[in-house]
Amino acid sequence: EEVARLLQLKAQLGDGAQKFILKCPKGTRDFDPKQMSVREGVFKTIIDSFKRHGAETIDTPVFELKETLTGKYGEDSKLIYDLADQGGELLSLRYDLTVPFARYLAMKKISNIKRYHIAKVYRRDNPAMTRGRFREFYQCDFDIAGAYDPMIPDVEVLKIVSEILSNLQIGDFEIKVNHRRFLDGMMACCGVPEDKFRAICSSIDKLDKTFWADVRAEMVDEKGLDPAAADKIEKYVKLRGRTELVEELQKDENLLKNTDAVEALEEMKVLFKYCDIMNITDKVKFDLSLARGLDYYTGLIYEGILKGPEASTPGEAVSVGSVAGGGRYDGLVGMFDPKGKKVPCVGVSIGIERIFSIMEAKLQAENAVIRTTETQVLVASAQKDLLEERMKLCNELWTADIKAEMSYKKNPKILSQLQYAEDSGIPYVAIIGGDEIEKGVVKIKDTSTREEVEIPRAELVSEIRKRSESK
Amino acid sequence: EEVARLLQLKAQLGDGAQKFILKCPKGTRDFDPKQMSVREGVFKTIIDSFKRHGAETIDTPVFELKETLTGKYGEDSKLIYDLADQGGELLSLRYDLTVPFARYLAMKKISNIKRYHIAKVYRRDNPAMTRGRFREFYQCDFDIAGAYDPMIPDVEVLKIVSEILSNLQIGDFEIKVNHRRFLDGMMACCGVPEDKFRAICSSIDKLDKTFWADVRAEMVDEKGLDPAAADKIEKYVKLRGRTELVEELQKDENLLKNTDAVEALEEMKVLFKYCDIMNITDKVKFDLSLARGLDYYTGLIYEGILKGPEASTPGEAVSVGSVAGGGRYDGLVGMFDPKGKKVPCVGVSIGIERIFSIMEAKLQAENAVIRTTETQVLVASAQKDLLEERMKLCNELWTADIKAEMSYKKNPKILSQLQYAEDSGIPYVAIIGGDEIEKGVVKIKDTSTREEVEIPRAELVSEIRKRSESK
Repeated sequence: EEVARLLQLKAQLGDGAQKFILKCPKGTRDFDPKQMSVREGVFKTIIDSFKRHGAETIDTPVFELKETLTGKYGEDSKLIYDLADQGGELLSLRYDLTVPFARYLAMKKISNIKRYHIAKVYRRDNPAMTRGRFREFYQCDFDIAGAYDPMIPDVEVLKIVSEILSNLQIGDFEIKVNHRRFLDGMMACCGVPEDKFRAICSSIDKLDKTFWADVRAEMVDEKGLDPAAADKIEKYVKLRGRTELVEELQKDENLLKNTDAVEALEEMKVLFKYCDIMNITDKVKFDLSLARGLDYYTGLIYEGILKGPEASTPGEAVSVGSVAGGGRYDGLVGMFDPKGKKVPCVGVSIGIERIFSIMEAKLQAENAVIRTTETQVLVASAQKDLLEERMKLCNELWTADIKAEMSYKKNPKILSQLQYAEDSGIPYVAIIGGDEIEKGVVKIKDTSTREEVEIPRAELVSEIRKRSESK
Repeated sequence: EEVARLLQLKAQLGDGAQKFILKCPKGTRDFDPKQMSVREGVFKTIIDSFKRHGAETIDTPVFELKETLTGKYGEDSKLIYDLADQGGELLSLRYDLTVPFARYLAMKKISNIKRYHIAKVYRRDNPAMTRGRFREFYQCDFDIAGAYDPMIPDVEVLKIVSEILSNLQIGDFEIKVNHRRFLDGMMACCGVPEDKFRAICSSIDKLDKTFWADVRAEMVDEKGLDPAAADKIEKYVKLRGRTELVEELQKDENLLKNTDAVEALEEMKVLFKYCDIMNITDKVKFDLSLARGLDYYTGLIYEGILKGPEASTPGEAVSVGSVAGGGRYDGLVGMFDPKGKKVPCVGVSIGIERIFSIMEAKLQAENAVIRTTETQVLVASAQKDLLEERMKLCNELWTADIKAEMSYKKNPKILSQLQYAEDSGIPYVAIIGGDEIEKGVVKIKDTSTREEVEIPRAELVSEIRKRSESK
């Protein structure tokens, strides 16, 4: 008999163990209630800022026709997730929220909108989950579409980035800005042939991670740039500054010959004037080494960067990484319009995953208690056979829109009920027993102070409301 | 020259027109700002109720390992979206939120949780978009996991469904309940062979859409059921009622022989007692024809059904359709646990898409103005060259956490600014001109009454706050 039992047990074990690999797909993760609580807090700060600036929101499907994404991401197209061909349309998961937004504008013939969109996007990238790089991750995008006067919507986007990064309280930050047309003009003036603009740009973009010598080597040795041109570029890409730098560059005779450079500098000057008005000049820095990868940018580009704790050590501040990025893209919507009608756009994407990681670490370091529910009262009883009484009281509280819970056991122990309230941070326990019911009263116990008072049952709702407000 | 121009134009047109089919994938849709506003309202009502009952929330990836979904949905497995095999793991889009939840519980070894999860799920079904059936759609799930006493968590789920459907104010509703073990017992007592339980169950489930004669024909002709058994089933599945029906069935000598039926009826009796305490008995009805498709249910099952306007015509109320469904599933988590450890669960899924459709139609019928932003003030100017002054004022308002907008044009017309405020429902316009700036005042115009008052600029923030509160 025992052998049979053991055999049966083994069969069960083997059965289960072989059937499933219990895991999330590579590069993805579950969010547990604590993480969700942090995530919702971060979203709230971000959405509050978007709404403060009058943004609407939209949503688009998680997948698009494959051809909608084709030709928008250059080399990175290999990172797009395709759906299996099960008959019907060929589909791909969205890679960002910008291309679906442009498709939406063209499809609905919208030429003016200020919208945010918070949703997950998908990239078959090499995940580095500890550093906040996932295959499924959230983007929080804010964009202003419409033909307006130069730099007016653009500066509002910078203002929003500044508001969000300040309000999140995750440390000091700066917003690097540059201008696509300035970069083009600068490269032209340095003698970079036009067909090498993009390649050289992408080398320049590496300057925040590597030394000039390495970048130069890449330009000259790998990309075949004239060493003289590289040396001229060096002079420029090391420059950082604000209005005074713009004015200095406006006197640079080399640049003066190039229309793109001249016009871009004029825009940068206007931008800094507006930054002064918006009180964000101390956060914004013209950085000639900022290039940004995506092909579709046509004007101002920017990146919001957190300065790490290393920032306090002598020498150059070391950036812990980009948490926001964006720019102006005046041509993308036109790529979707049958007549090529352009809708100028400017926007930003907040890189939420890295912010989550920082927030989680911060909360852990502070040993903060993260509540995962909003329950105000636990209805408990100290005696047996009071299940129905607890139900009745819960129902009274729910009807009065008080958030309340009770144990689902018929006869839970009072200690385990109190322990539950403590563990989940429920501020009050409403305790009833035979005596209390007879007398028409309820005991309220404050979970943190452990103080207990008896009040008339009819006053329970108003008492909880009063206490909740004053907390 | 003109020919060349025309040719160029043609080339442009052809180019754009052939490149893209501007559409969403079949069975999916974009949500515009108005729809998002309705959607957010619906979500809020639902989440408020989940939180009132102390629920936490979690999130899981949009795709799972293909094998995680395998063998959970029976026939419907053909509706699962697979991702293309691009190397690496084989993945599928989630089909519902219940299987990922069970996978999550097993993986994290959680045996007690009360959680909600609102997210999109994917089914390659035949879309019927006007009736709210999509290939990408939201599910709002609430589940209680844990080994508790009978019907205590179950009745709270019914209470939540009742709260949500009441609070949404989308018309009268009822919650049909039945019990899987009662159904099994009933079928056994009617002489249905055990291997035909599921097939006969799925025929019974069609009774809300078709006549008994058709269902009987399917049972007998297609599924080979003994006509005598079908006739016995008829007697039962026409029954509806509450406690009195349970008591009547408890006297049925035919059923008394079957343990499943007897125990299930005992549970139903307890359920109705709890429903009385929770004040929802008038909404809950024992309906012996409710069967529900999914394989994994093991106990109580239920469906929340809106009664259409036809309900007022004589005769039987015609249901406009199910907007919530769920039940107890005590075996699903065990399917994922290597040792087969069971975690009893009970839950519900709110069918949000149909609710959206109803809400949208209702709002349209009421000609309701749906605001898509929360902007409190539009900062405007009646004169030229006041862009920077408008920026300054906006910045003051943002700093005080007032939601404010301004035109992005350098010199917008006053009429178009006022029109914008009216169109987007912005309640106040703050108007400045040279005079106002000199005098240190601002004119506030109420968009709805068109009344204008002049107040000191320093009082603008408090004035807006005061007015916004009293609205």
